[in-house]
Amino acid sequence: MCDTCGCNVTPAADEHAVEVLKGLLDANDHEALHNREHFQRHNVLAINLMSSPGAGKTALLEATIDALGGDLKVAVVEGDLETENDADRIRAKGVPAIQISTGSACHLDAHMVHAALHDLDLDDVDVVFIENVGNLVCPASFDLGQHINVALLSTPEGDDKPAKYPVMFRAADLVLITKSDLLEVLDDFDPDAAERCVREIANPAPLFKVSSKTGLGMEAWLDWLRQEAGSRG
Amino acid sequence: MCDTCGCNVTPAADEHAVEVLKGLLDANDHEALHNREHFQRHNVLAINLMSSPGAGKTALLEATIDALGGDLKVAVVEGDLETENDADRIRAKGVPAIQISTGSACHLDAHMVHAALHDLDLDDVDVVFIENVGNLVCPASFDLGQHINVALLSTPEGDDKPAKYPVMFRAADLVLITKSDLLEVLDDFDPDAAERCVREIANPAPLFKVSSKTGLGMEAWLDWLRQEAGSRG
Repeated sequence: MCDTCGCNVTPAADEHAVEVLKGLLDANDHEALHNREHFQRHNVLAINLMSSPGAGKTALLEATIDALGGDLKVAVVEGDLETENDADRIRAKGVPAIQISTGSACHLDAHMVHAALHDLDLDDVDVVFIENVGNLVCPASFDLGQHINVALLSTPEGDDKPAKYPVMFRAADLVLITKSDLLEVLDDFDPDAAERCVREIANPAPLFKVSSKTGLGMEAWLDWLRQEAGSRG
Repeated sequence: MCDTCGCNVTPAADEHAVEVLKGLLDANDHEALHNREHFQRHNVLAINLMSSPGAGKTALLEATIDALGGDLKVAVVEGDLETENDADRIRAKGVPAIQISTGSACHLDAHMVHAALHDLDLDDVDVVFIENVGNLVCPASFDLGQHINVALLSTPEGDDKPAKYPVMFRAADLVLITKSDLLEVLDDFDPDAAERCVREIANPAPLFKVSSKTGLGMEAWLDWLRQEAGSRG
Protein backbone atom coordinates (compact mmCIF):
# COMPACT_ATOMS: atom_id res chain seq x y z
CA MET A 1 0.00 0.00 0.00
CA CYS A 2 1.44 3.34 -1.06
CA ASP A 3 1.11 5.57 1.99
CA THR A 4 0.93 8.84 0.07
CA CYS A 5 -1.61 8.15 -2.62
CA GLY A 6 -3.29 5.06 -1.19
CA CYS A 7 -2.74 2.85 -4.21
CA ASN A 8 -2.41 -0.86 -3.70
CA VAL A 9 0.98 -1.69 -5.12
CA THR A 10 3.22 -4.46 -3.85
CA PRO A 11 6.95 -4.56 -4.51
CA ALA A 12 7.83 -6.55 -7.65
CA ALA A 13 10.62 -8.71 -6.32
CA ASP A 14 9.37 -11.30 -3.84
CA GLU A 15 11.38 -14.11 -2.27
CA HIS A 16 10.23 -16.56 -4.89
CA ALA A 17 11.50 -14.41 -7.74
CA VAL A 18 14.85 -13.94 -6.01
CA GLU A 19 15.17 -17.72 -5.68
CA VAL A 20 14.44 -18.29 -9.37
CA LEU A 21 16.97 -15.65 -10.43
CA LYS A 22 19.58 -17.21 -8.13
CA GLY A 23 18.91 -20.55 -9.83
CA LEU A 24 19.65 -19.01 -13.24
CA LEU A 25 22.96 -17.58 -11.98
CA ASP A 26 23.94 -20.93 -10.43
CA ALA A 27 23.26 -22.71 -13.73
CA ASN A 28 25.37 -20.09 -15.51
CA ASP A 29 28.28 -20.59 -13.08
CA HIS A 30 28.15 -24.33 -13.64
CA GLU A 31 28.38 -23.87 -17.40
CA ALA A 32 31.15 -21.25 -17.03
CA LEU A 33 33.22 -23.79 -15.12
CA HIS A 34 32.76 -26.17 -18.02
CA ASN A 35 33.84 -23.51 -20.56
CA ARG A 36 36.94 -22.81 -18.47
CA GLU A 37 37.83 -26.51 -18.67
CA HIS A 38 37.49 -26.32 -22.49
CA PHE A 39 39.96 -23.42 -22.53
CA GLN A 40 42.41 -25.06 -20.10
CA ARG A 41 42.44 -28.32 -22.04
CA HIS A 42 43.61 -26.38 -25.12
CA ASN A 43 46.01 -24.05 -23.25
CA VAL A 44 43.97 -21.11 -24.47
CA LEU A 45 43.80 -17.76 -22.66
CA ALA A 46 40.21 -16.47 -22.62
CA ILE A 47 39.62 -12.73 -22.22
CA ASN A 48 36.21 -11.14 -21.65
CA LEU A 49 36.18 -7.64 -23.21
CA MET A 50 33.53 -5.39 -21.68
CA SER A 51 32.57 -1.73 -22.12
CA SER A 52 29.81 0.74 -22.98
CA PRO A 53 28.45 0.64 -26.53
CA GLY A 54 30.88 2.27 -28.93
CA ALA A 55 33.88 2.35 -26.59
CA GLY A 56 35.98 0.68 -29.28
CA LYS A 57 36.12 -3.03 -28.46
CA THR A 58 36.07 -4.18 -32.09
CA ALA A 59 38.49 -1.44 -33.17
CA LEU A 60 40.87 -2.55 -30.39
CA LEU A 61 40.68 -6.14 -31.63
CA GLU A 62 41.35 -5.06 -35.23
CA ALA A 63 44.39 -3.01 -34.15
CA THR A 64 45.59 -5.83 -31.88
CA ILE A 65 45.36 -8.45 -34.65
CA ASP A 66 47.28 -6.14 -37.01
CA ALA A 67 49.97 -5.37 -34.44
CA LEU A 68 50.45 -9.00 -33.41
CA GLY A 69 50.97 -9.99 -37.06
CA GLY A 70 50.35 -13.68 -36.29
CA ASP A 71 52.64 -13.57 -33.24
CA LEU A 72 49.78 -15.02 -31.16
CA LYS A 73 46.95 -16.99 -32.75
CA VAL A 74 43.68 -15.29 -31.99
CA ALA A 75 39.99 -16.23 -32.27
CA VAL A 76 37.02 -14.03 -31.40
CA VAL A 77 33.51 -14.60 -30.06
CA GLU A 78 31.33 -11.56 -30.79
CA GLY A 79 28.23 -10.69 -28.77
CA ASP A 80 25.62 -8.25 -30.08
CA LEU A 81 21.86 -7.96 -29.87
CA GLU A 82 21.68 -7.79 -33.67
CA THR A 83 23.88 -7.67 -36.80
CA GLU A 84 26.90 -9.68 -37.88
CA ASN A 85 28.94 -6.47 -38.41
CA ASP A 86 31.58 -7.08 -35.76
CA ALA A 87 32.30 -10.68 -36.72
CA ASP A 88 32.60 -9.56 -40.36
CA ARG A 89 35.19 -6.93 -39.37
CA ILE A 90 37.26 -9.55 -37.52
CA ARG A 91 37.01 -12.12 -40.34
CA ALA A 92 38.25 -9.45 -42.77
CA LYS A 93 41.51 -9.63 -40.77
CA GLY A 94 41.78 -13.37 -41.48
CA VAL A 95 40.86 -14.33 -37.93
CA PRO A 96 38.05 -16.80 -37.07
CA ALA A 97 35.04 -15.11 -35.46
CA ILE A 98 31.72 -16.49 -34.22
CA GLN A 99 28.84 -14.02 -33.92
CA ILE A 100 26.33 -14.54 -31.12
CA SER A 101 23.09 -12.58 -31.64
CA THR A 102 21.48 -12.20 -28.23
CA GLY A 103 18.16 -10.76 -29.51
CA SER A 104 17.04 -8.64 -26.59
CA ALA A 105 19.49 -10.03 -24.01
CA CYS A 106 21.79 -7.43 -22.49
CA HIS A 107 24.81 -9.67 -21.88
CA LEU A 108 26.46 -12.90 -22.96
CA ASP A 109 25.99 -15.88 -20.69
CA ALA A 110 28.03 -19.05 -20.35
CA HIS A 111 25.52 -21.10 -22.33
CA MET A 112 25.81 -18.83 -25.38
CA VAL A 113 29.63 -18.95 -25.21
CA HIS A 114 29.55 -22.74 -24.82
CA ALA A 115 27.52 -23.08 -28.02
CA ALA A 116 29.96 -20.75 -29.84
CA LEU A 117 32.99 -22.72 -28.66
CA HIS A 118 31.73 -25.79 -30.48
CA ASP A 119 32.10 -23.84 -33.74
CA LEU A 120 35.70 -22.83 -32.99
CA ASP A 121 38.73 -25.06 -33.42
CA LEU A 122 40.72 -24.25 -30.28
CA ASP A 123 43.67 -26.53 -31.16
CA ASP A 124 45.33 -23.84 -33.20
CA VAL A 125 44.51 -20.86 -30.95
CA ASP A 126 46.45 -19.04 -28.20
CA VAL A 127 43.93 -16.39 -27.16
CA VAL A 128 40.12 -16.26 -27.41
CA PHE A 129 38.65 -12.78 -27.05
CA ILE A 130 35.00 -12.74 -26.04
CA GLU A 131 33.61 -9.34 -27.01
CA ASN A 132 30.60 -8.92 -24.75
CA VAL A 133 27.46 -6.88 -25.49
CA GLY A 134 28.15 -3.15 -25.05
CA ASN A 135 26.84 -2.56 -21.54
CA LEU A 136 28.64 -1.32 -18.41
CA VAL A 137 26.32 -3.16 -16.00
CA CYS A 138 24.94 -6.63 -16.73
CA PRO A 139 27.91 -8.40 -18.38
CA ALA A 140 29.95 -8.04 -15.17
CA SER A 141 27.56 -10.37 -13.31
CA PHE A 142 27.85 -13.38 -15.66
CA ASP A 143 30.92 -15.60 -15.58
CA LEU A 144 31.61 -16.91 -19.10
CA GLY A 145 34.54 -19.13 -18.17
CA GLN A 146 37.12 -16.47 -19.06
CA HIS A 147 40.44 -16.11 -17.23
CA ILE A 148 40.63 -12.34 -17.41
CA ASN A 149 38.24 -9.38 -17.57
CA VAL A 150 39.37 -6.33 -19.55
CA ALA A 151 37.16 -3.26 -19.18
CA LEU A 152 37.39 -0.47 -21.74
CA LEU A 153 36.65 3.11 -20.72
CA SER A 154 36.57 5.49 -23.68
CA THR A 155 37.64 9.07 -23.07
CA PRO A 156 34.39 10.71 -24.34
CA GLU A 157 32.41 8.83 -21.68
CA GLY A 158 34.02 10.81 -18.86
CA ASP A 159 36.51 9.93 -16.14
CA ASP A 160 33.82 9.34 -13.48
CA LYS A 161 32.43 6.13 -14.96
CA PRO A 162 34.33 3.72 -12.63
CA ALA A 163 32.60 5.44 -9.67
CA LYS A 164 29.19 5.24 -11.33
CA TYR A 165 29.53 1.64 -12.59
CA PRO A 166 31.50 0.06 -9.73
CA VAL A 167 30.40 -3.55 -10.35
CA MET A 168 32.02 -3.52 -13.79
CA PHE A 169 35.22 -1.73 -12.82
CA ARG A 170 35.67 -3.77 -9.63
CA ALA A 171 35.60 -6.92 -11.79
CA ALA A 172 38.26 -5.62 -14.21
CA ASP A 173 41.75 -7.16 -14.21
CA LEU A 174 42.91 -4.48 -16.62
CA VAL A 175 41.36 -1.13 -17.63
CA LEU A 176 42.08 0.25 -21.10
CA ILE A 177 41.42 3.96 -21.56
CA THR A 178 40.46 3.88 -25.23
CA LYS A 179 40.20 6.73 -27.78
CA SER A 180 43.07 8.42 -25.94
CA ASP A 181 43.87 10.37 -29.11
CA LEU A 182 40.76 12.43 -28.25
CA LEU A 183 42.29 13.61 -24.94
CA GLU A 184 43.68 16.58 -26.89
CA VAL A 185 40.20 17.86 -27.76
CA LEU A 186 38.26 16.77 -24.67
CA ASP A 187 38.43 18.93 -21.58
CA ASP A 188 36.47 16.62 -19.28
CA PHE A 189 38.59 13.50 -19.07
CA ASP A 190 41.52 13.35 -16.66
CA PRO A 191 43.25 9.92 -16.75
CA ASP A 192 44.49 10.43 -13.15
CA ALA A 193 40.91 11.04 -11.98
CA ALA A 194 39.80 7.82 -13.73
CA GLU A 195 42.58 5.94 -11.96
CA ARG A 196 41.57 7.41 -8.59
CA CYS A 197 37.98 6.18 -9.18
CA VAL A 198 39.31 2.66 -9.81
CA ARG A 199 41.47 2.77 -6.65
CA GLU A 200 38.51 4.04 -4.60
CA ILE A 201 36.58 0.87 -5.38
CA ALA A 202 39.62 -1.07 -4.11
CA ASN A 203 40.78 -2.37 -7.49
CA PRO A 204 44.59 -2.39 -7.97
CA ALA A 205 44.29 -3.22 -11.71
CA PRO A 206 46.64 -1.44 -14.13
CA LEU A 207 45.22 1.22 -16.48
CA PHE A 208 46.74 1.77 -19.93
CA LYS A 209 45.95 4.67 -22.25
CA VAL A 210 45.53 3.39 -25.80
CA SER A 211 44.31 4.56 -29.20
CA SER A 212 43.42 2.00 -31.84
CA LYS A 213 43.42 4.82 -34.37
CA THR A 214 46.90 6.29 -33.78
CA GLY A 215 48.58 3.27 -32.16
CA LEU A 216 49.24 5.25 -28.98
CA GLY A 217 49.98 2.97 -26.02
CA MET A 218 49.41 -0.25 -27.95
CA GLU A 219 52.88 -1.63 -27.07
CA ALA A 220 52.10 -1.74 -23.32
CA TRP A 221 48.83 -3.55 -24.01
CA LEU A 222 50.52 -6.04 -26.36
CA ASP A 223 53.32 -6.72 -23.84
CA TRP A 224 50.72 -7.38 -21.16
CA LEU A 225 48.81 -9.68 -23.52
CA ARG A 226 51.90 -11.65 -24.56
CA GLN A 227 52.87 -12.11 -20.93
CA GLU A 228 49.40 -13.36 -19.92
CA ALA A 229 49.24 -15.71 -22.93
CA GLY A 230 52.76 -16.96 -22.20
CA SER A 231 51.89 -17.84 -18.63
CA ARG A 232 49.24 -20.27 -19.98
CA GLY A 233 51.10 -21.51 -23.09
CA MET B 1 23.41 -32.87 -22.79
CA CYS B 2 26.12 -31.17 -24.85
CA ASP B 3 26.49 -33.33 -27.96
CA THR B 4 30.09 -32.37 -28.69
CA CYS B 5 31.77 -32.78 -25.35
CA GLY B 6 29.22 -34.94 -23.56
CA CYS B 7 28.77 -32.65 -20.56
CA ASN B 8 25.45 -32.66 -18.77
CA VAL B 9 24.29 -29.07 -19.05
CA THR B 10 20.66 -27.99 -19.27
CA PRO B 11 19.58 -24.57 -20.58
CA ALA B 12 19.25 -21.99 -17.82
CA ALA B 13 15.88 -20.54 -18.73
CA ASP B 14 13.04 -22.98 -18.14
CA GLU B 15 9.32 -22.29 -18.45
CA HIS B 16 9.01 -21.60 -14.75
CA ALA B 17 11.68 -18.88 -14.84
CA VAL B 18 10.05 -17.26 -17.86
CA GLU B 19 6.75 -17.15 -15.98
CA VAL B 20 8.33 -15.51 -12.92
CA LEU B 21 10.08 -12.89 -15.08
CA LYS B 22 6.81 -12.17 -16.88
CA GLY B 23 5.18 -11.63 -13.49
CA LEU B 24 7.82 -9.02 -12.63
CA LEU B 25 7.19 -7.16 -15.90
CA ASP B 26 3.41 -7.26 -15.36
CA ALA B 27 3.82 -5.78 -11.87
CA ASN B 28 6.04 -3.07 -13.35
CA ASP B 29 3.45 -2.21 -16.01
CA HIS B 30 0.77 -1.91 -13.36
CA GLU B 31 2.87 0.52 -11.36
CA ALA B 32 3.83 2.47 -14.50
CA LEU B 33 0.15 3.03 -15.22
CA HIS B 34 -0.19 4.44 -11.73
CA ASN B 35 2.80 6.78 -12.23
CA ARG B 36 1.26 8.01 -15.49
CA GLU B 37 -1.91 8.88 -13.59
CA HIS B 38 0.21 10.89 -11.11
CA PHE B 39 1.70 12.86 -14.01
CA GLN B 40 -1.64 13.38 -15.78
CA ARG B 41 -3.32 14.61 -12.61
CA HIS B 42 -0.69 17.37 -12.39
CA ASN B 43 -0.56 18.13 -16.14
CA VAL B 44 3.09 17.18 -16.11
CA LEU B 45 4.95 15.93 -19.17
CA ALA B 46 7.22 13.00 -18.22
CA ILE B 47 10.25 12.24 -20.40
CA ASN B 48 12.43 9.14 -20.06
CA LEU B 49 16.00 10.00 -21.15
CA MET B 50 17.99 6.94 -22.16
CA SER B 51 21.48 6.40 -23.60
CA SER B 52 24.82 4.67 -23.18
CA PRO B 53 26.95 5.68 -20.20
CA GLY B 54 28.59 9.04 -20.82
CA ALA B 55 26.47 10.06 -23.83
CA GLY B 56 25.72 13.36 -22.12
CA LYS B 57 22.29 13.03 -20.51
CA THR B 58 23.14 15.19 -17.48
CA ALA B 59 25.01 17.73 -19.60
CA LEU B 60 21.96 17.99 -21.87
CA LEU B 61 19.74 18.63 -18.85
CA GLU B 62 22.11 21.30 -17.52
CA ALA B 63 22.19 23.07 -20.89
CA THR B 64 18.40 22.72 -21.27
CA ILE B 65 17.73 24.22 -17.83
CA ASP B 66 20.06 27.13 -18.62
CA ALA B 67 18.50 27.76 -22.03
CA LEU B 68 14.91 27.57 -20.75
CA GLY B 69 15.70 30.17 -18.07
CA GLY B 70 12.58 29.26 -16.08
CA ASP B 71 10.41 29.25 -19.20
CA LEU B 72 9.22 25.77 -18.30
CA LYS B 73 9.40 24.48 -14.73
CA VAL B 74 11.52 21.35 -14.63
CA ALA B 75 12.19 18.60 -12.08
CA VAL B 76 14.55 15.67 -12.50
CA VAL B 77 14.67 12.06 -11.30
CA GLU B 78 18.21 10.70 -11.60
CA GLY B 79 19.02 6.99 -11.89
CA ASP B 80 22.51 5.66 -11.24
CA LEU B 81 23.97 2.52 -9.73
CA GLU B 82 26.01 4.63 -7.32
CA THR B 83 26.85 8.27 -6.45
CA GLU B 84 24.71 11.38 -6.03
CA ASN B 85 26.84 13.26 -8.59
CA ASP B 86 24.16 13.81 -11.22
CA ALA B 87 21.47 15.02 -8.81
CA ASP B 88 24.02 17.42 -7.30
CA ARG B 89 24.77 18.86 -10.75
CA ILE B 90 21.04 19.45 -11.39
CA ARG B 91 20.43 20.97 -7.93
CA ALA B 92 23.31 23.38 -8.58
CA LYS B 93 21.07 24.80 -11.32
CA GLY B 94 18.32 25.49 -8.77
CA VAL B 95 16.15 22.64 -10.02
CA PRO B 96 14.73 19.92 -7.73
CA ALA B 97 16.34 16.52 -8.30
CA ILE B 98 15.79 13.15 -6.66
CA GLN B 99 18.62 10.62 -6.91
CA ILE B 100 17.73 6.94 -7.17
CA SER B 101 20.68 4.62 -6.43
CA THR B 102 19.90 1.29 -8.06
CA GLY B 103 22.80 -0.63 -6.48
CA SER B 104 23.50 -3.31 -9.06
CA ALA B 105 20.29 -2.86 -11.07
CA CYS B 106 20.84 -1.96 -14.73
CA HIS B 107 17.68 0.13 -15.25
CA LEU B 108 15.05 2.13 -13.43
CA ASP B 109 11.72 0.45 -12.85
CA ALA B 110 8.30 1.93 -12.19
CA HIS B 111 8.48 1.13 -8.47
CA MET B 112 11.68 3.16 -8.02
CA VAL B 113 10.18 6.11 -9.92
CA HIS B 114 6.98 5.88 -7.88
CA ALA B 115 8.95 6.16 -4.64
CA ALA B 116 10.86 9.16 -6.05
CA LEU B 117 7.65 10.92 -7.12
CA HIS B 118 6.51 11.05 -3.52
CA ASP B 119 9.52 13.27 -2.78
CA LEU B 120 8.71 15.68 -5.62
CA ASP B 121 6.09 18.41 -5.48
CA LEU B 122 4.51 18.11 -8.95
CA ASP B 123 2.10 21.02 -8.45
CA ASP B 124 4.67 23.53 -9.57
CA VAL B 125 6.26 21.51 -12.37
CA ASP B 126 5.71 21.37 -16.16
CA VAL B 127 8.21 18.70 -17.17
CA VAL B 128 9.75 15.80 -15.23
CA PHE B 129 12.87 14.34 -16.82
CA ILE B 130 13.70 10.82 -15.71
CA GLU B 131 17.38 10.23 -16.43
CA ASN B 132 17.67 6.47 -16.68
CA VAL B 133 20.74 4.37 -15.89
CA GLY B 134 23.30 4.61 -18.71
CA ASN B 135 22.52 1.45 -20.68
CA LEU B 136 21.37 1.01 -24.30
CA VAL B 137 19.55 -2.24 -23.61
CA CYS B 138 17.58 -2.88 -20.42
CA PRO B 139 15.92 0.52 -19.75
CA ALA B 140 13.94 0.21 -23.01
CA SER B 141 12.00 -2.78 -21.63
CA PHE B 142 10.63 -1.10 -18.49
CA ASP B 143 7.75 1.34 -18.70
CA LEU B 144 8.15 4.00 -16.00
CA GLY B 145 4.90 5.86 -16.71
CA GLN B 146 6.58 8.40 -19.00
CA HIS B 147 4.83 9.96 -21.98
CA ILE B 148 7.87 10.17 -24.20
CA ASN B 149 11.16 8.32 -24.71
CA VAL B 150 14.16 10.36 -25.80
CA ALA B 151 17.23 8.32 -26.79
CA LEU B 152 20.62 10.01 -26.95
CA LEU B 153 23.26 8.74 -29.36
CA SER B 154 26.64 10.43 -28.86
CA THR B 155 28.85 10.87 -31.90
CA PRO B 156 31.91 9.01 -30.49
CA GLU B 157 29.79 5.85 -30.11
CA GLY B 158 29.46 5.45 -33.88
CA ASP B 159 26.57 5.82 -36.29
CA ASP B 160 25.76 2.07 -36.35
CA LYS B 161 24.36 1.89 -32.82
CA PRO B 162 20.65 2.06 -33.78
CA ALA B 163 21.18 -1.12 -35.85
CA LYS B 164 23.02 -2.85 -33.02
CA TYR B 165 20.61 -1.79 -30.24
CA PRO B 166 17.27 -1.89 -32.07
CA VAL B 167 15.07 -2.36 -29.00
CA MET B 168 16.19 1.00 -27.58
CA PHE B 169 16.04 2.96 -30.83
CA ARG B 170 12.72 1.45 -31.88
CA ALA B 171 11.25 2.71 -28.59
CA ALA B 172 12.53 6.27 -29.11
CA ASP B 173 10.08 9.09 -29.89
CA LEU B 174 13.02 11.41 -30.51
CA VAL B 175 16.73 10.74 -31.10
CA LEU B 176 19.26 13.37 -30.06
CA ILE B 177 22.70 13.06 -31.66
CA THR B 178 24.76 14.48 -28.80
CA LYS B 179 28.37 15.77 -28.75
CA SER B 180 27.84 16.94 -32.32
CA ASP B 181 30.65 19.46 -31.83
CA LEU B 182 32.97 16.43 -32.11
CA LEU B 183 31.79 15.66 -35.67
CA GLU B 184 34.64 17.89 -36.87
CA VAL B 185 37.30 15.61 -35.38
CA LEU B 186 35.59 12.22 -35.77
CA ASP B 187 35.78 10.47 -39.13
CA ASP B 188 33.50 7.55 -38.26
CA PHE B 189 30.13 9.17 -37.57
CA ASP B 190 27.83 10.09 -40.44
CA PRO B 191 24.50 11.57 -39.18
CA ASP B 192 22.76 10.40 -42.38
CA ALA B 193 23.91 6.83 -41.75
CA ALA B 194 22.57 7.04 -38.18
CA GLU B 195 19.23 8.22 -39.54
CA ARG B 196 19.15 5.38 -42.08
CA CYS B 197 19.68 2.88 -39.22
CA VAL B 198 16.70 4.37 -37.36
CA ARG B 199 14.51 4.20 -40.48
CA GLU B 200 15.56 0.59 -41.13
CA ILE B 201 14.07 -0.45 -37.80
CA ALA B 202 10.83 1.25 -38.92
CA ASN B 203 11.03 4.23 -36.57
CA PRO B 204 9.91 7.58 -38.08
CA ALA B 205 11.16 9.58 -35.05
CA PRO B 206 12.95 12.87 -35.73
CA LEU B 207 16.72 13.11 -35.11
CA PHE B 208 18.31 16.40 -33.97
CA LYS B 209 22.04 17.10 -33.84
CA VAL B 210 22.88 18.89 -30.60
CA SER B 211 25.88 19.93 -28.54
CA SER B 212 25.41 20.84 -24.89
CA LYS B 213 28.90 22.31 -24.95
CA THR B 214 28.59 24.72 -27.89
CA GLY B 215 24.81 25.15 -27.95
CA LEU B 216 24.63 23.75 -31.50
CA GLY B 217 21.11 22.62 -32.38
CA MET B 218 19.65 23.38 -28.95
CA GLU B 219 16.91 25.60 -30.39
CA ALA B 220 15.26 22.75 -32.33
CA TRP B 221 15.29 20.57 -29.21
CA LEU B 222 13.84 23.37 -27.06
CA ASP B 223 11.10 24.12 -29.62
CA TRP B 224 10.17 20.44 -29.67
CA LEU B 225 10.14 20.35 -25.86
CA ARG B 226 7.99 23.48 -25.53
CA GLN B 227 5.51 22.08 -28.04
CA GLU B 228 5.24 18.71 -26.27
CA ALA B 229 4.86 20.40 -22.87
CA GLY B 230 2.29 22.81 -24.31
CA SER B 231 0.15 19.99 -25.64
CA ARG B 232 -0.24 18.73 -22.06
CA GLY B 233 -0.34 22.07 -20.22
